[in-house]
Amino acid sequence: MSLRSDHQRYIVGRRALQEAIDAGTLLEKVFFMYGLDEPGIHRLRSQIEKSGVAVSTMDRRKFGHLEQDLGLDRNDAQGVIAMRPVRDPVSLDDILNFEDLEKGGPLIVALDGITDPHNLGAIARSAEAAGARGMIVTDQHTAPVTPVAVKASAGALEHLSMTKVQRMSTTLATARERGWTVIGTSVPAQARYNEVELKGPTLIVIGSEGSGLHPRVLDECDHIVEIPMYGKVASLNASVAAGILLFEVVRQTRQGGQG
Amino acid sequence: MSLRSDHQRYIVGRRALQEAIDAGTLLEKVFFMYGLDEPGIHRLRSQIEKSGVAVSTMDRRKFGHLEQDLGLDRNDAQGVIAMRPVRDPVSLDDILNFEDLEKGGPLIVALDGITDPHNLGAIARSAEAAGARGMIVTDQHTAPVTPVAVKASAGALEHLSMTKVQRMSTTLATARERGWTVIGTSVPAQARYNEVELKGPTLIVIGSEGSGLHPRVLDECDHIVEIPMYGKVASLNASVAAGILLFEVVRQTRQGGQG
Repeated sequence: MSLRSDHQRYIVGRRALQEAIDAGTLLEKVFFMYGLDEPGIHRLRSQIEKSGVAVSTMDRRKFGHLEQDLGLDRNDAQGVIAMRPVRDPVSLDDILNFEDLEKGGPLIVALDGITDPHNLGAIARSAEAAGARGMIVTDQHTAPVTPVAVKASAGALEHLSMTKVQRMSTTLATARERGWTVIGTSVPAQARYNEVELKGPTLIVIGSEGSGLHPRVLDECDHIVEIPMYGKVASLNASVAAGILLFEVVRQTRQGGQG
Repeated sequence: MSLRSDHQRYIVGRRALQEAIDAGTLLEKVFFMYGLDEPGIHRLRSQIEKSGVAVSTMDRRKFGHLEQDLGLDRNDAQGVIAMRPVRDPVSLDDILNFEDLEKGGPLIVALDGITDPHNLGAIARSAEAAGARGMIVTDQHTAPVTPVAVKASAGALEHLSMTKVQRMSTTLATARERGWTVIGTSVPAQARYNEVELKGPTLIVIGSEGSGLHPRVLDECDHIVEIPMYGKVASLNASVAAGILLFEVVRQTRQGGQG
């Protein structure tokens, strides 16, 4: 999917954005051109900020590039372009509910603190390819779905159900009550990633690039596993580690056992 | 490793660069500041270009950022900064020669056409973490070891032996003669990646992000494998796919069998 062809994702201009706000349209992010000191802009901006939607202020040159990328004419945007989510978020219930058990058991990936949009996109790509039913991300601590993330996802963010939550530890507790087995990574771990059984409904939670999973999140894990390291570097790229865990679930559920 | 502390990697200034050229020092890339129309600069540049080392011309602002990153004073660089390889390349023989068989059998990763420095760095990180003895890259078609690649490698490019080759297909033929089993990925494949035995000396070759492995390279593979895809996206990020293959080798050689 190219961003150029994806015009429904963008809301262009002040009036269109005000109408979208009034209609309760879900927004992912709003871009404002820097230096427009006008009441109309201030009004829009304060409504957006109150709603908690991410705001980005771009200088004239960068804003011009965005206009060009979207094929806009000089006065279409009037300094405001909003981005809708790649797809509308679903509810947590929709993702956790697995009456319709797929072959091999359902799979979810959860991100708590991934800040690099490349990693967000690459993990979505791996999760969708592994047949995951959805992705859970923390609202405050995880990167938003930027154009960089969409590109890195190679289309996966169009297909993968996504939901945002406030606190990962609370969400994982809910998931466990509903029958999901929660797998986190940390060092030291209780087991190697391929030594635990990953055959039922499995939720894999990935921590931040820098500091991994929060202790409160680790408390909610059924298994804390590690990928063994045989060199001098201490860890893998977050999206590589996520890919290895996701495809270990695939290997076990669709093809064989752990070990 | 921070780039700041890594001053030995950089050769700063015209005279230092000329001395390095005269001494036959291996260079990875040379940065020139744009707009310096002086005979001394032209002389250096033409020597560098003849030697086949990559050249990058930066505008004043970007060059200034590089100077700042390296903690240089205003007149240290005189418009020229050269970068040495993270470590000196080793010979192909050094990498292929495995008299000193490690536990679990030796492992090599080869890159033919990876153009994103992030991917180059992330694959080096995974390879080093998996205990690989080295990395083989094609000289013309693979990304150079830029600061972005070094950062993405999280230090792995300091530790992993690397060699550059002209033609991957010829190199793979040599590796096979020396007893290496060559594994490539393509669709359609002969087998899933976890259904072939990866226990002896194993060389995993990774193709370009866009078009995968060249037919001449596939001709030199002992096994062409695939990572099964269960969603709508057709492929994984190249560094994620490489990580899954590398850690499947680890799983089989150190812990169990294929399947």
